[in-house]
Amino acid sequence: MTGKIYSASTTAPVNIATLKYWGKRDTKLNLPTNSSISVTLSQDDLRTLTTASAADFFQSDKLWLDGKEESLEGPRLVACLSELRALRKALEDANPEFPPLSKYHLHIISENNFPTAAGLASSAAGFAALVRAIANLYDLHQSPEDLSRIARQGSGSACRSMFGGYVAWEMGQEADGSDSRAVQIATQEAWPDMKAAILVISASKKETSSTLGMQTTVNTSTLFKYRAEVVVPQRFKEMSKAIVNKDFETFGKLTMIDSNQFHAVCLDSSPPVFYMNDTSRLVIGLIEKFNKIHDRVVAAYTFDAGPNAVLYYLERDEPIVLGLLKAAVPEVDGWDKKSYTASIAPTVPEGVDKRILEALREGVSKIILTGVGSGPQSTEETLVDSNGLPK
Amino acid sequence: MTGKIYSASTTAPVNIATLKYWGKRDTKLNLPTNSSISVTLSQDDLRTLTTASAADFFQSDKLWLDGKEESLEGPRLVACLSELRALRKALEDANPEFPPLSKYHLHIISENNFPTAAGLASSAAGFAALVRAIANLYDLHQSPEDLSRIARQGSGSACRSMFGGYVAWEMGQEADGSDSRAVQIATQEAWPDMKAAILVISASKKETSSTLGMQTTVNTSTLFKYRAEVVVPQRFKEMSKAIVNKDFETFGKLTMIDSNQFHAVCLDSSPPVFYMNDTSRLVIGLIEKFNKIHDRVVAAYTFDAGPNAVLYYLERDEPIVLGLLKAAVPEVDGWDKKSYTASIAPTVPEGVDKRILEALREGVSKIILTGVGSGPQSTEETLVDSNGLPK
Repeated sequence: MTGKIYSASTTAPVNIATLKYWGKRDTKLNLPTNSSISVTLSQDDLRTLTTASAADFFQSDKLWLDGKEESLEGPRLVACLSELRALRKALEDANPEFPPLSKYHLHIISENNFPTAAGLASSAAGFAALVRAIANLYDLHQSPEDLSRIARQGSGSACRSMFGGYVAWEMGQEADGSDSRAVQIATQEAWPDMKAAILVISASKKETSSTLGMQTTVNTSTLFKYRAEVVVPQRFKEMSKAIVNKDFETFGKLTMIDSNQFHAVCLDSSPPVFYMNDTSRLVIGLIEKFNKIHDRVVAAYTFDAGPNAVLYYLERDEPIVLGLLKAAVPEVDGWDKKSYTASIAPTVPEGVDKRILEALREGVSKIILTGVGSGPQSTEETLVDSNGLPK
Repeated sequence: MTGKIYSASTTAPVNIATLKYWGKRDTKLNLPTNSSISVTLSQDDLRTLTTASAADFFQSDKLWLDGKEESLEGPRLVACLSELRALRKALEDANPEFPPLSKYHLHIISENNFPTAAGLASSAAGFAALVRAIANLYDLHQSPEDLSRIARQGSGSACRSMFGGYVAWEMGQEADGSDSRAVQIATQEAWPDMKAAILVISASKKETSSTLGMQTTVNTSTLFKYRAEVVVPQRFKEMSKAIVNKDFETFGKLTMIDSNQFHAVCLDSSPPVFYMNDTSRLVIGLIEKFNKIHDRVVAAYTFDAGPNAVLYYLERDEPIVLGLLKAAVPEVDGWDKKSYTASIAPTVPEGVDKRILEALREGVSKIILTGVGSGPQSTEETLVDSNGLPK
């Protein structure tokens, strides 16, 4: 039984926060205890591709991730779908000639161009792609800001993946979350020379989920409230200004101290929550030393809820940053993905302890070289076949 | 050339803080930014023995530590000696028949019964023994509280080693440090069943000295001030009360969260300061799990400025605590030091991941089994020979 299948496809990016989101004031609506800022990474390297399709002969809502069918019953997915359907319904009510897609079941098919479980913010890209693809399928004219409120309900940080470039998630004040949404601070084009190197570091054991970790912190840390209420608002202003001014020194300093403070409030929780390991700490020590040798912030590290290091740096410093990393982890997977790395010579500045580089080698499994990128992009590439199933 | 040698010998204990001292408001006088609390450990296991001697034929002040001559020129040693000499001088002025020891040079000889460099608070025991020995030599009648102000100038936490049992270091308010001193909260006899197991964990690299680490935190952490001014004063009251009430549940909970918060403000510093490593974190995870299984605080971990774990627990829980540790690190040095451990069977409670125990084995090099102990003790054992040199 087949018939007309309506579909739309989009890609969406990963984003890595430079001012961290940690703590929910409403767990159902994913409302945060503080505003946050992130850089959207290039979809050439990390992206989710999602096709949303609807047809009157579909029997139920279905979702496939990387070829595997997944449940659509989670309350977060349900919240996203029902909000989007309600917007479509309003359109149909106003325009009776529109096909009644809001009544059709959805088949959503999604694929990442990177391993889902590597701790690389795949849920942010995933929910952003899902919301954007369905919004396109439904011909919704809501702004990305408005749609970001829906994506937020899927996964908090997903709201920031609705934009490219440099993005703020304004925490908002309303109890219903209507003002908790993402806005763009600067486009990718405004500050295009931001690069990122991700060092994939294997975790020795399963980490605490970020939802559980956040709630442990909110409920038990005595330092957390001070961070959320006093420290972050000030940093938010300073970092937004640094981005607009393309002031990497300030941006990088704030990025590092905020990553450290996020992990500090995790440690101040009971039981304490640890995401970084000894290898993560070696990266911190190495970059602090490297910046000190150069007497400026050449590279800025940040760590999410896992041991992987993300290093931000400017394109002009690529030879020295990648020279250092090539000396540290010359053999890991990922160097061959970028042609320009072939010409970079491994370089260890005087003052860097070579034993640190050797120790790093044991803990780093992969490098991903990328940079600031664009927001969700519509694409003709489709993942759905003529029966409404994954190709 | 010899003559009459005056001498006095004392032992002094190590103490391990349960409410942490971190941050100086005056680096010269070692005045802290917050009050702290510690447990004095038994000198059977960890103690410094110091002989202070004086003679008119000594040519200069001299100090020997574990057989090696050390400089006496450090400003902290100079401060201790000059304060003690001034007190002796006042005694001599009031009692002309007293020998003029304040005019004689000192030979100070000191020995630890444990490795100095293992990160076991040897400077606290060392300065407490030095001050106590010279005070005895000089027949000073100042109270231990008064003498603790002098020991504090040698090494902040040394002031707490002037007492046995459970000790508070009251931060004081005066700029000259006159009210920054140690007082006893409870004697060893009042709560005698407090035990401690120290897991010696090797550090992979030299740690940041605590003086430097503290100043980095004071100068850069945005959370530190809130800890010192808001969190600690409340915990100080609660922990003092828990000790007086022999309430291990509260004492243990506060001990763990305060250790974690101390390390959290270290991480919130720029550059971040790390003292715990992956093995330290395994111990935390193990003890959190162990307490959860027992649905009470059976053991409480605490970590100073290094990776070693100190576990406090009550004597009645020795079979289950040491049973767990015997299962984890059966082969390490230290089990044979206590006869009662022979009868303890290695026991892993259901729910503890055996892989954690195996991972621990790689990082722990030694166990020291001890408990709450007494303050400095005069002894007839002397380290000085008839020439005024180390025996």
